[in-house]
Amino acid sequence: MKLINGGVCAAKGYKANGIHCGIRKNRTKNDLSLIVSEKRATAAAVYTTNLVKGAPLAVTKKHISDGYASAVICNSGNANTCNANGAEIAEKMSSLIADKLGICASDVVVASTGVIGQPLDITPIANGIPALVEGLSTEGGAAAAEGIMTTDTVRKEIAVEFEIGGKTCRLGGIAKGSGMIHPNMATMLVFITSDVAISAEMLQKALSSDVTSTFNMLSVDGDTSTNDMVVVLANGMAENPEIVSEGEDFSTFMKALNTITVQLSREIVGDGEGATKLLECTVSGAKDLATARTVAKSVVCSSLLKAAMFGADANWGRVLCAIGYSGADVDVSRVDVSFKSNAGEILVCKDGAGVDFSEELAKQILLEKEIDIIISVGNGEGTATAWGCDLTYDYVKINGDYRT
Amino acid sequence: MKLINGGVCAAKGYKANGIHCGIRKNRTKNDLSLIVSEKRATAAAVYTTNLVKGAPLAVTKKHISDGYASAVICNSGNANTCNANGAEIAEKMSSLIADKLGICASDVVVASTGVIGQPLDITPIANGIPALVEGLSTEGGAAAAEGIMTTDTVRKEIAVEFEIGGKTCRLGGIAKGSGMIHPNMATMLVFITSDVAISAEMLQKALSSDVTSTFNMLSVDGDTSTNDMVVVLANGMAENPEIVSEGEDFSTFMKALNTITVQLSREIVGDGEGATKLLECTVSGAKDLATARTVAKSVVCSSLLKAAMFGADANWGRVLCAIGYSGADVDVSRVDVSFKSNAGEILVCKDGAGVDFSEELAKQILLEKEIDIIISVGNGEGTATAWGCDLTYDYVKINGDYRT
Repeated sequence: MKLINGGVCAAKGYKANGIHCGIRKNRTKNDLSLIVSEKRATAAAVYTTNLVKGAPLAVTKKHISDGYASAVICNSGNANTCNANGAEIAEKMSSLIADKLGICASDVVVASTGVIGQPLDITPIANGIPALVEGLSTEGGAAAAEGIMTTDTVRKEIAVEFEIGGKTCRLGGIAKGSGMIHPNMATMLVFITSDVAISAEMLQKALSSDVTSTFNMLSVDGDTSTNDMVVVLANGMAENPEIVSEGEDFSTFMKALNTITVQLSREIVGDGEGATKLLECTVSGAKDLATARTVAKSVVCSSLLKAAMFGADANWGRVLCAIGYSGADVDVSRVDVSFKSNAGEILVCKDGAGVDFSEELAKQILLEKEIDIIISVGNGEGTATAWGCDLTYDYVKINGDYRT
Repeated sequence: MKLINGGVCAAKGYKANGIHCGIRKNRTKNDLSLIVSEKRATAAAVYTTNLVKGAPLAVTKKHISDGYASAVICNSGNANTCNANGAEIAEKMSSLIADKLGICASDVVVASTGVIGQPLDITPIANGIPALVEGLSTEGGAAAAEGIMTTDTVRKEIAVEFEIGGKTCRLGGIAKGSGMIHPNMATMLVFITSDVAISAEMLQKALSSDVTSTFNMLSVDGDTSTNDMVVVLANGMAENPEIVSEGEDFSTFMKALNTITVQLSREIVGDGEGATKLLECTVSGAKDLATARTVAKSVVCSSLLKAAMFGADANWGRVLCAIGYSGADVDVSRVDVSFKSNAGEILVCKDGAGVDFSEELAKQILLEKEIDIIISVGNGEGTATAWGCDLTYDYVKINGDYRT
């Protein structure tokens, strides 16, 4: 498993591009992205569990119900959600790009992200499509990664190389955060491409399994988005023996997928709205996996803990409080808590009560950009990791006037 | 039902006091409060559902298990939670004050609020008790209300007068917020006193029923406190025929109690940590009460909506998003949303989609201090109200360095 440069164009047979077509007023930000596979690819997806769903999700779901897709088109600046004509516009985006590419509209994955409840004008998209398609290249992954960003401050892309059946395979992805992000859902927008040959069924199995320990274990602000979607395409151009069942090849693919999704998860919360710190909470000793996950998620979701981390305040009482209200079956008198970062590690709570610790060292540890919150709740087998970020003035600023 | 001046001393037979004994470094803030009933009173309480519970809660629960209490002692500045000797200290607080008052230690309600996980030194409390008791008076309610405050900026007290069985009765209360406040719990600290004659059983019934629509319907930050507790004392000195069953008298008492608890609920969120606005979310047309409550609570808990309200931004998409992920069974295509305040009322969403509205009027409405978010989700019978506050820079500031 080797990390390589690139994102959605790392695997064989993919081209991408991103342009500014005019949905956003800010001309320096791309707002329309396209990813195209040379060969029709198997496709899998997971979607938000929010009852309010962006129109593009229903259209995408219908399009990939046969297990195949060839292209992904995504705009930012407008979520195309809660609009009377949303489905119509999403279908129109699909058919316009399909016509230009000479593929079937039902092989298009369509996505939108941005403001909810404002009609999405098809005109700038229609006008932008010729340039979008003409600019497609194997170097276009970064431009595509930029075109799906909303309040993200950095683009998020990653790729890995690995071997299956003696063939070199690649898998790469791009993601956008950065607010309205919370576990118990599918997740934000993530597009992953691979040249592995894998059946649509096994691709969906891999994705559905993977998100439970990755994208579903992160939170920026407790708000589950209406437009969350993760899509994986696999076009088979690596020419490995097609993966049609579990086994060594499937495990290798799962491992590659997990490498990508963990890294994108970390990047999404690290670039959460207003975030200055990435929080990784690891829980061990729980009676089972579900309990460990519940505890870890509750801790990274606590507004009080997140504000304390912003202030580099080793207020471990906030951790215990969040464990206590998580609903998990935990003996609080057996809880240990440590904080860890590049500056060191410090035990702050043992058996549910405070221990003497150096406030100075704790401060140094918490002033770092990446903080591990290490929790032991007993001697069970359940372990889990969740990711989050701090709560900052800038989160409030960004969301105090998001629409303008 | 007449609003009158005062708080816990409004009813006959109660004295109170609050002093600075030295738990807090800031000498201008009271940190120890006492409420005493001349006659032993029936007592009822509800407590936090957090698994991590402050030591005083267990001691109070034990003390009022017989349905009676005579005094409430409460310190701020330290929660006496997650300390090895917590129960011992809480018992000591009870016995010290009981000895001084000449009552039984098991008739003392004991409470603490403040930092979690720092041992509570009994010395300043022991030293303060003589002055605390000597200063008891029927004018001491305000001092007591101040002594239980943490990050609250204003003291919270209210009282009402009403008639039962031809006798004038009174009920008054004090409360402290202002962070770590979230539904699905008992609640923050609230002490209510009355001179009504009511059995302990009926008093508990009244309280347990009331909190489901009042204190359990408010949220400041989504964090359920470890030290939440609401206690009601009723000493019978109004000499009404004792309320021992449901009926007209019980209904009158319930109405008086609800007047107090709704007002304290509003004051708690209005003075939520960093809050500049009080949000009242009313849901109607749900298929049942539970659905209406779920929707209303989800909306007031949304960090994104709260930040938008801080910015006076009519971003109704945040409201729909929060309804969508609430888990409530709602047809989102039938949702209407309006914002209302002293400056007017404006419909922003009809049947799940945006309507044209004046951004200027919306801004004027949202610049007010009290905002109503009015949601209709269909034509069912379920209605509910939840209270919250906006998310502000000051919330982050207060909690970025809470312990110092």
